[in-house]
Amino acid sequence: MSTPRIPPPLAGGARGADALRPLLDIALGALREGATARGGPLPAGGPEAVAERVRAAAHPVLPDRGTGPETALRTLIHALTEGAADPAEPLCAAHLHCPPLAVATAADLAASALNPSMDSWDQAPAATALEALVTRALAAEIHDGGDALITTGGTEANQLALLLAREAPTTRGPVRLLVGANAHHSLTRAAWLLGLPEPVVVPAPAGTLDPAALDEALTELGGPPGTFLVAATAGTTDAGLIDPLDDIAELCAAHGARLHVDAAYGGGLLFSDTRKEQLNGIDRADTVALDLHKLGWQPAAAGLLAARDPRDLDALNHRADYLNADDDTDAGLPDLLGRSLRTTRRPDVLKVAVTLKALGRTGLGHLVDQVCDQAGEFAELIDAHPAFELYDAPAISTVLFRPAGATDHHIAHVRRRLLTEGTAVLGRADLDGRRWLKATLLNPHTRPGDLAGLLKLVEETAAAPTAEAAEAAEAATDRTEGTTPR
Amino acid sequence: MSTPRIPPPLAGGARGADALRPLLDIALGALREGATARGGPLPAGGPEAVAERVRAAAHPVLPDRGTGPETALRTLIHALTEGAADPAEPLCAAHLHCPPLAVATAADLAASALNPSMDSWDQAPAATALEALVTRALAAEIHDGGDALITTGGTEANQLALLLAREAPTTRGPVRLLVGANAHHSLTRAAWLLGLPEPVVVPAPAGTLDPAALDEALTELGGPPGTFLVAATAGTTDAGLIDPLDDIAELCAAHGARLHVDAAYGGGLLFSDTRKEQLNGIDRADTVALDLHKLGWQPAAAGLLAARDPRDLDALNHRADYLNADDDTDAGLPDLLGRSLRTTRRPDVLKVAVTLKALGRTGLGHLVDQVCDQAGEFAELIDAHPAFELYDAPAISTVLFRPAGATDHHIAHVRRRLLTEGTAVLGRADLDGRRWLKATLLNPHTRPGDLAGLLKLVEETAAAPTAEAAEAAEAATDRTEGTTPR
Repeated sequence: MSTPRIPPPLAGGARGADALRPLLDIALGALREGATARGGPLPAGGPEAVAERVRAAAHPVLPDRGTGPETALRTLIHALTEGAADPAEPLCAAHLHCPPLAVATAADLAASALNPSMDSWDQAPAATALEALVTRALAAEIHDGGDALITTGGTEANQLALLLAREAPTTRGPVRLLVGANAHHSLTRAAWLLGLPEPVVVPAPAGTLDPAALDEALTELGGPPGTFLVAATAGTTDAGLIDPLDDIAELCAAHGARLHVDAAYGGGLLFSDTRKEQLNGIDRADTVALDLHKLGWQPAAAGLLAARDPRDLDALNHRADYLNADDDTDAGLPDLLGRSLRTTRRPDVLKVAVTLKALGRTGLGHLVDQVCDQAGEFAELIDAHPAFELYDAPAISTVLFRPAGATDHHIAHVRRRLLTEGTAVLGRADLDGRRWLKATLLNPHTRPGDLAGLLKLVEETAAAPTAEAAEAAEAATDRTEGTTPR
Repeated sequence: MSTPRIPPPLAGGARGADALRPLLDIALGALREGATARGGPLPAGGPEAVAERVRAAAHPVLPDRGTGPETALRTLIHALTEGAADPAEPLCAAHLHCPPLAVATAADLAASALNPSMDSWDQAPAATALEALVTRALAAEIHDGGDALITTGGTEANQLALLLAREAPTTRGPVRLLVGANAHHSLTRAAWLLGLPEPVVVPAPAGTLDPAALDEALTELGGPPGTFLVAATAGTTDAGLIDPLDDIAELCAAHGARLHVDAAYGGGLLFSDTRKEQLNGIDRADTVALDLHKLGWQPAAAGLLAARDPRDLDALNHRADYLNADDDTDAGLPDLLGRSLRTTRRPDVLKVAVTLKALGRTGLGHLVDQVCDQAGEFAELIDAHPAFELYDAPAISTVLFRPAGATDHHIAHVRRRLLTEGTAVLGRADLDGRRWLKATLLNPHTRPGDLAGLLKLVEETAAAPTAEAAEAAEAATDRTEGTTPR
């Protein structure tokens, strides 16, 4: 108005798509060139080398005058891609970090372009309706007549489960959380966040919560019904194991405890006709955490908290006159303000809805089966290999293994060496008193040859002299030969 | 592996860009066609009509066999766009709901495609480095040597500010929050979430926190230094007003209270050379909430919490052996796990970094100046119009106004009628004992003619007989003429 300068184009409105097209071309070009420059699952050189390249690309971060959109997009997306640990590369298999489907990623673009915010109907008319449909459909996969909230992930879903337990009308006094020693760290962190007592940790000697130990803990703690929340896990972070849900549900019923199941990982098994029985008993939980950015192939974030009794969600009901005044609600304006602790909220539901419709339950189930089958075959490969030891047959798609006879220290070193060389991204876990390398298989495009190659790479890296050993050997040689150490 | 079916393409890896291109074409086409079908700032017909169209497009939400990606993308993005309240339309101006820049939206695509997760270095090598650079650069706009966390928005930033105060080594006993009556609802909700006492509400009779009332409240409450957190607001949700930050900082210093400033809205003024002085005193705050999905033109989410003393952020330090084992940290692997309460975390920093580099401080400052200038001009238009009453000259870009002589009930009705007819999205606020219509101007492309048109539309809608009045009049006519009421 008072300045004649034309502002840069917007992503929305009638001309948004035309403004986006050339910029998306630049983004796609930078993604392609960055991947070529990387040439593997992650960049070589380690943290300082990566940070140096990022600094060079980003500097200055907030210039006085900008470079214009083309240069900024090209430079920074190239740097991010060249420096990515890309889960679409088969040898990037450390964490519950999935390669997103192209269809989900394309759908997510529309969420960014339109920028609906889920905190009031008049910021998200259609997205409000879509979220209600999708959350109910996904909740129904677990509980008939259940409902679900969209979250930023399993961590927020676990927080909300504990909050709902704290606020439930049936809860007496401050709720006490019981978690398996195998549970996700976010549960303990949630208790701290919410100002609740430290959780009681129940032993999980075999990697899954021990029902006898849980029974003992609940009995010892005593207290009236409605004092305790038990959190079980369907798909542990370390080994992908599933707690005995039915037995645990039985104990919760007997002791009058609420049950939450953290199925952030394992929840995806619901889509598989042949594997969903591994989750038997999950429908007896009061709340369930699900993460479609794990076995659902969504870009983050795509978390859910499903509740058996939709009334449990009323604890989040919230009024703010500028968003949902009583008379607006009475006049028929729906709102989702009480469906989250966030206010502004991106419609993560869109990419999920597009994926569900595009693939269907069968298509998603196939992807789940593929990565679980891969894990089974990789485990067989390891088990048959004399240089490796297998932790156990995988329950979902996590395979733990170790070079036979290696020390814990050496295993951590091998993992870091693979990272630094940019050749593979593997995780780690300490279980049964020993350290393991962890491969979490989430890429349905991975082929048997990729996994055989991964094993060969680990074998060679484990057998290679460590840098310190090489230096020590070299120093010894230097001394023998009378040269000056370099 | 065991199944011959070829999985749908991924967004990442060497072939991701090629897989994305045709799907993005479909998404862009659906965005364009959906905007044409909508033909205005939001869909006409009200919530039930919108929900019905969404149900028709989405049904069945989770089919057994999918439709394939093209149909799913086209159908659902079309429905979401046709049913959007699109902030890129000048007459969509209710909330702190900005139209995102095309460049930011294009950048965000790369975040979705690569899916880095910020909770460990080996899921986000370059993104980890980029986040550290950008958060420090933005923090430095407020505090020399400060640091900042990325959040999902002002709500989470306010939560974290309260959490940091609760955990600060200098805090004695349970921290007590003092908020102005004008503060955002998320602060009170945060106290509830964190298990803290209800906040003390300090009067804000003129729409901003009254320093004398704050002084009185702090004196009355007493308690040793380190007992209180005062939350001030730079840009209230209702009127866009800025509390007297310098006076408040002075009082906090005198009483030994911590100071948090919720600058989710007003923080954008920092980019404007001429307007940043409106925030004088903000550098004296311990923590500051910023939202680049407001005056920063980012797709949600792009929140920040800036801290004067980086050591304050140590309260979030967190260990999880699978993500940041001590020996990995000792070996030089950096990690951002302690930079958030989330675990999996999308790199929202990428779109922010690209925007800062593309526009520079000057370019962003221009956008801020443009919307603030618009607001000033719109206010003058209203003030000169005999049919309207202006609340006050805008402090940032929020303009409150009302049809002269209208009742509060009628004003709410006018707003809902505009929404139902699909002609304009305006907000509402109750201030000074009366109800106002609220226009929050965040679209730098809006022209004076758009705002004149908006005013004319509101004038006509306010003057039109209400549905109930029209029906009553019609019924009366019917009776006079002896016809059967329809």
